Amino acid sequence: MTSARVIAATQAKAKVLVEAMPYLRALAGRRVVVKCGGEVVDDAEQSASLVQDLLLLKMAGIDVVLCHGGGPQISRMMERLGLAPEFRDGLRVTDAATMEVTAMVLLGRVNLELVGLLNVHGPEAVGVNGTDARMFLVEPASPELGLVGEVVEVSAAPVERLLADGYMPVVASIGMDAQGRPHNINADIAAGQLAAALGAEKFVLLTNVEGLYESFGEADSLISEIDPSGLRGLVDGGSLSAGMLPKVDAVLAAVAGGVPRCHILDGRERHALLLEVFTPEGIGTMVRP
Amino acid sequence: MTSARVIAATQAKAKVLVEAMPYLRALAGRRVVVKCGGEVVDDAEQSASLVQDLLLLKMAGIDVVLCHGGGPQISRMMERLGLAPEFRDGLRVTDAATMEVTAMVLLGRVNLELVGLLNVHGPEAVGVNGTDARMFLVEPASPELGLVGEVVEVSAAPVERLLADGYMPVVASIGMDAQGRPHNINADIAAGQLAAALGAEKFVLLTNVEGLYESFGEADSLISEIDPSGLRGLVDGGSLSAGMLPKVDAVLAAVAGGVPRCHILDGRERHALLLEVFTPEGIGTMVRP
Amino acid sequence: MTSARVIAATQAKAKVLVEAMPYLRALAGRRVVVKCGGEVVDDAEQSASLVQDLLLLKMAGIDVVLCHGGGPQISRMMERLGLAPEFRDGLRVTDAATMEVTAMVLLGRVNLELVGLLNVHGPEAVGVNGTDARMFLVEPASPELGLVGEVVEVSAAPVERLLADGYMPVVASIGMDAQGRPHNINADIAAGQLAAALGAEKFVLLTNVEGLYESFGEADSLISEIDPSGLRGLVDGGSLSAGMLPKVDAVLAAVAGGVPRCHILDGRERHALLLEVFTPEGIGTMVRP
Amino acid sequence: MTSARVIAATQAKAKVLVEAMPYLRALAGRRVVVKCGGEVVDDAEQSASLVQDLLLLKMAGIDVVLCHGGGPQISRMMERLGLAPEFRDGLRVTDAATMEVTAMVLLGRVNLELVGLLNVHGPEAVGVNGTDARMFLVEPASPELGLVGEVVEVSAAPVERLLADGYMPVVASIGMDAQGRPHNINADIAAGQLAAALGAEKFVLLTNVEGLYESFGEADSLISEIDPSGLRGLVDGGSLSAGMLPKVDAVLAAVAGGVPRCHILDGRERHALLLEVFTPEGIGTMVRP
Amino acid sequence: MTSARVIAATQAKAKVLVEAMPYLRALAGRRVVVKCGGEVVDDAEQSASLVQDLLLLKMAGIDVVLCHGGGPQISRMMERLGLAPEFRDGLRVTDAATMEVTAMVLLGRVNLELVGLLNVHGPEAVGVNGTDARMFLVEPASPELGLVGEVVEVSAAPVERLLADGYMPVVASIGMDAQGRPHNINADIAAGQLAAALGAEKFVLLTNVEGLYESFGEADSLISEIDPSGLRGLVDGGSLSAGMLPKVDAVLAAVAGGVPRCHILDGRERHALLLEVFTPEGIGTMVRP
Amino acid sequence: MTSARVIAATQAKAKVLVEAMPYLRALAGRRVVVKCGGEVVDDAEQSASLVQDLLLLKMAGIDVVLCHGGGPQISRMMERLGLAPEFRDGLRVTDAATMEVTAMVLLGRVNLELVGLLNVHGPEAVGVNGTDARMFLVEPASPELGLVGEVVEVSAAPVERLLADGYMPVVASIGMDAQGRPHNINADIAAGQLAAALGAEKFVLLTNVEGLYESFGEADSLISEIDPSGLRGLVDGGSLSAGMLPKVDAVLAAVAGGVPRCHILDGRERHALLLEVFTPEGIGTMVRP
Repeated sequence: MTSARVIAATQAKAKVLVEAMPYLRALAGRRVVVKCGGEVVDDAEQSASLVQDLLLLKMAGIDVVLCHGGGPQISRMMERLGLAPEFRDGLRVTDAATMEVTAMVLLGRVNLELVGLLNVHGPEAVGVNGTDARMFLVEPASPELGLVGEVVEVSAAPVERLLADGYMPVVASIGMDAQGRPHNINADIAAGQLAAALGAEKFVLLTNVEGLYESFGEADSLISEIDPSGLRGLVDGGSLSAGMLPKVDAVLAAVAGGVPRCHILDGRERHALLLEVFTPEGIGTMVRP
Repeated sequence: MTSARVIAATQAKAKVLVEAMPYLRALAGRRVVVKCGGEVVDDAEQSASLVQDLLLLKMAGIDVVLCHGGGPQISRMMERLGLAPEFRDGLRVTDAATMEVTAMVLLGRVNLELVGLLNVHGPEAVGVNGTDARMFLVEPASPELGLVGEVVEVSAAPVERLLADGYMPVVASIGMDAQGRPHNINADIAAGQLAAALGAEKFVLLTNVEGLYESFGEADSLISEIDPSGLRGLVDGGSLSAGMLPKVDAVLAAVAGGVPRCHILDGRERHALLLEVFTPEGIGTMVRP
Repeated sequence: MTSARVIAATQAKAKVLVEAMPYLRALAGRRVVVKCGGEVVDDAEQSASLVQDLLLLKMAGIDVVLCHGGGPQISRMMERLGLAPEFRDGLRVTDAATMEVTAMVLLGRVNLELVGLLNVHGPEAVGVNGTDARMFLVEPASPELGLVGEVVEVSAAPVERLLADGYMPVVASIGMDAQGRPHNINADIAAGQLAAALGAEKFVLLTNVEGLYESFGEADSLISEIDPSGLRGLVDGGSLSAGMLPKVDAVLAAVAGGVPRCHILDGRERHALLLEVFTPEGIGTMVRP
Repeated sequence: MTSARVIAATQAKAKVLVEAMPYLRALAGRRVVVKCGGEVVDDAEQSASLVQDLLLLKMAGIDVVLCHGGGPQISRMMERLGLAPEFRDGLRVTDAATMEVTAMVLLGRVNLELVGLLNVHGPEAVGVNGTDARMFLVEPASPELGLVGEVVEVSAAPVERLLADGYMPVVASIGMDAQGRPHNINADIAAGQLAAALGAEKFVLLTNVEGLYESFGEADSLISEIDPSGLRGLVDGGSLSAGMLPKVDAVLAAVAGGVPRCHILDGRERHALLLEVFTPEGIGTMVRP
Repeated sequence: MTSARVIAATQAKAKVLVEAMPYLRALAGRRVVVKCGGEVVDDAEQSASLVQDLLLLKMAGIDVVLCHGGGPQISRMMERLGLAPEFRDGLRVTDAATMEVTAMVLLGRVNLELVGLLNVHGPEAVGVNGTDARMFLVEPASPELGLVGEVVEVSAAPVERLLADGYMPVVASIGMDAQGRPHNINADIAAGQLAAALGAEKFVLLTNVEGLYESFGEADSLISEIDPSGLRGLVDGGSLSAGMLPKVDAVLAAVAGGVPRCHILDGRERHALLLEVFTPEGIGTMVRP
Repeated sequence: MTSARVIAATQAKAKVLVEAMPYLRALAGRRVVVKCGGEVVDDAEQSASLVQDLLLLKMAGIDVVLCHGGGPQISRMMERLGLAPEFRDGLRVTDAATMEVTAMVLLGRVNLELVGLLNVHGPEAVGVNGTDARMFLVEPASPELGLVGEVVEVSAAPVERLLADGYMPVVASIGMDAQGRPHNINADIAAGQLAAALGAEKFVLLTNVEGLYESFGEADSLISEIDPSGLRGLVDGGSLSAGMLPKVDAVLAAVAGGVPRCHILDGRERHALLLEVFTPEGIGTMVRP
């Protein structure tokens, strides 16, 4: 193949790269907070795709922060240890034994694996959790939930220093109370609060749905853009599944804290993050004021 | 009591503070690496004493790094999960299931608890492990040991940045291989290698013995000071217990890497660390070239 | 179109972006010197394509320097002023009147236009020439060539400061002698020398041929990679057109000065620069040691 | 001659140096913007004197910015190219051909020559124009004037960075519109606007008259100091020549922008700039609020 | 003695060090201004104790500033020179001859000796006085007092730069007027003003009394804590000795300037400063809002 | 007087300023150490002239350091105190009483007065002596000379920090021994050693002679330039007065330490320093390798 033909064949590539330019321009030097579920590490292909996307964003000069939960893995480990998971209003009742498992799984399984994958080609990522430098300070959410904490103070300093040092922080959703004891916190909401505290330009929630729907279950009713009051309307109208409620709370917390664009995407799609950030096509649901 | 009497009663205090001065002078702005075993978090009093000592050293302007293992806790958790710990030459044979437990316990139990305790009064400490920013890069130690790694490259950068940012790094002994997979590493030796990589002024190994003995079992034969060749002589002479061997290797690695003073202390004594650092009395065994 | 279909349609885009990753990684924070001819500003589409590519490279964190000549425009302006261009060994004989035209065209036409195009969306570029801060210090090349200078000292400081300030330097090929008088210099060679002085990672010569050929005129004989001695062989073998000789000298100067990769590309192809930098396909001819 | 006699003979020199002290004190580290006409480069002695003065000011720790026009040279080059200069209200009607000549002459003739002269003894000066980093953003002044621009936004950043890097910026009076196209701007007024944007301590207009006169043509009526309202009175009273009007506008723009002292001097006098800055004698006309 | 016994014997030491922790925490990186009288250098033991305390505070990361007077030495030197000290309202009438002696004694005797003692083990201290960089600018206090000055402007810059450079400033109580002439100033009040200007955390006045008493002369009535209005009450009630009045003024000036804790201690007690700063026992009288 | 005439009258001034340019260029940012005797403060006109010159050099961007002695004033004060000055080989025998007077006079009289004069118009100068931050560390010169010290270690750090902070250090010639005790040192030699330690560009000794003479007493034989070996020849030839010997030693120490130009000038001439630095006429004697 002559060089001329090679070039002809690659003009389509050039178009993609050129198209990405205004997005690169807008986000370089800005902060993007991405939240994924723990299940991403159960699927090698999905985690590889996510890791690629995150590293590409980082290379493009974006300050990326990854937050994660670990629900499925926690439940599985509890079972192996003969503990019975118990939920109240969608929140895991967390006694000392449950908290021990939660911490072990989030840090020793999910966080460690994500950090390891991100560091295969270089010293890119560092794991942190809310106990480090008192990042997520909590108060008990309710007496009957045990060691479930509500984050009452977010200290973005450790994450900001990691970003300044050129590392991608990988944040596990554990909080600490004033006595230094680890608490279980909702990963979506903590991520939204952190996005606000960081002054993030974008907060991306990777879920296992395509986005929000006007009518739950009707694929045609996928909402591409909505504002916070519309979002509250959906909640009040009861058209959201129970699992989406903390995600909506997370988005509302981020928007209220000044994050101009929040996105609910389907994390199971390959490179959903990359496409959302660098191409003009709308994916999932965008929330902005 | 009049002020004069109060002062009289406190002159003894003044003496202690004044006596600490030359040690403060010598170590301010320098780095001290402390290694403790995982058992410290099983004893509330011992961990409180250690945490106090570490924070006092930090306040005195010393750049303190805490490294820890977690042997007892790992074995207990394995038992709870029905896994049988197996050792070869004092090293834990580490299959995937064992590695998973190792990581969960080191990060989710020991590291998290130490960091939480250190942060009760302020944002002092941040947990890290060898996967973060590729700090401890390993190669398999031996095919039959499974996921046991030998640290072949120490990258002190993440620890140095934490120190520069004013945090005390709390280092869990996990390494990663070139594919990003977590590996089990010996906590003593990794700490000694890190002390060397950091150019530490002092490397303190907190153990559950008073120090090294000329004749194992004879309390009178405690060695207060020894040099590396003397140490090697002890090893060759067979007068050391098997459990001390990795500690000796750790000290030899640190000394070979330029650390001028290494100490083997009894971590069960209250404030052993503080007394070693700030008082003229010799405690435990000091190794120096 | 549902979101799923949108994503399916954009996976190809994701592939291009992902593919660009290792190139982004390798070049971010490095310097790339690009040389184009003056004719680029005669073709609005070609200059738009070049400007897009340069800005994309800059956004990707690459320190880009653009060097340019202006041969065709100089000859045209000389004709308008009734001056007869005269060449000796491919070099323009440069009396005072010719020098005046050369400077006016390079700075007032080519440089100004390129800088203007680069700055349409933001303060990206700043024009400089070899007189600024004594960047290209010359000695007369030969008495019979008049004000043609040979660059005897390259001071990269003004270009390095512009890069440090976040600007793309656009370098016009004018030198000055020790008395401050402007001289005509060969733009290709000066660009190669500057690439060496800057420690550039890449030196890209945009020409109006597809690359170098084993046999001049035979499209099939396009050389995709060659080393300096091979290149000298081509020169000695006489298989290069006269116009390619200064380009070869420029490349040899850059390679000798430590630039690891030099490229001779067809600047008339859209986005040739972008494709060379960010895709795995070989375009044009690469010279490396 | 004995040393005593030498000293006696040099006490007069000491007096001059001592006298310059308070002026040095007042201006060291401050910014002074000097505007000269293009004709200065037509007179070797005058340009040598100006260059000496500028370098002395720079050595004395003053941040000097030189702005220049190029009227006479533009007209001459237009004639050589068979173009007829046309003026409306003292402004040059600027079609595309005229703009091309304007840019070529300002950058390739006047700016290049000034920069070259300033750099004979070291890397002191760097040329810039309003297209560089979007320094002078313009809108069309009037449809019938063609490419004549009114500066609507001054971005002092590129000049400030050059000053911070230790270079003297030499500013050619070219603006760019939002599409990146070069425009003809009035050099006096742009210099006054730049002085204001830079927070200059002094703005010096070098002209070919001794200063402003109460009665045009009567040498005795030279005004040594005047305030802006007095200046507006002169304009309204019609006692100023047409050529002085843009200079008055430049001074008024500078004063309105906070420049505390503006001076209209006779640039033909040797070292007029130096004497104005460093001696107590009043030269020319000073305007201050 | 075995290591266990050594440790047992040193637990009391550990207690003192641990007890000092919260004070270290509160003061590290903060500024403490200490004022002592000139008589301290007449007593080798007292000056050695003070110097030890000051260096320990400095090592503990506190920015310490020492201010001193020199009353007794000035009077003695005046006698040696046949000059008769004369006081009005507790202030020394200062003619030119008295000022000369004052300056010589403060700088050449007291300041020099304190600086020398502080520097025996390293480059710790640097002497300054109010003439240096115009630190204490004065106006005449009253015509009949001669060269006695009231400090009307405190410029903390030279002291702040010394602190930033890692030195302990040792400040002699000399002021200068606008003509550069040295003046006699009250050392207590100047120290209090300096403490305020520095934003000090603590201002410690070392005196030769145990503190303030409710009833002068009754040892039992020592006041351990008082607020400014209480202090003014003591003054108005006449229960303070005349010598205490400038000390009270100094404390009131410091409190009014924002210093949160001021202390009046007995400087004759060994390590009074150290004990006040690092132990929980109250010594002397603390004044706080 | 018209502006034209004013300018004509001031061209001579311009000539002086222009002539000073190359000297300004050569010395800006460099260090110049000036040594004067204590007698300068006995003559108001002479000290005013020196202070003006020093401030002008500082304003011109030169890092100026002033060193001084105080011989005449020390002798006078000793007489007032009934102490008999005693010299051995031109060095003052210094018992404790003499040292006390020496320190008091140098710091409390000469240094304080010079600093005060330099600070009349702004915070320009700060006094220091060899005790500050252990600047001049001495050993006893000889048992019979008492507290006369030989400087064995010069620590330029405190002077360099003052320069970096924008202050002119005024250095009193007092040294300290390893126990912190002040010692009498030769001011000329200490200044020469300091000039070497600072890497000064120039070392200027202001004396009360016109310079060095080939034949002592013959005005015609003033030496304008000499090299170190020539200087040693003068010493060996016995043609120098005793008082000049320490000055020669000072110059030789400076030259040996790398100071390229040393000058012996007549400090009684007005502005001798200024003229030496900024005019082409040779004043006094220059020593260079």
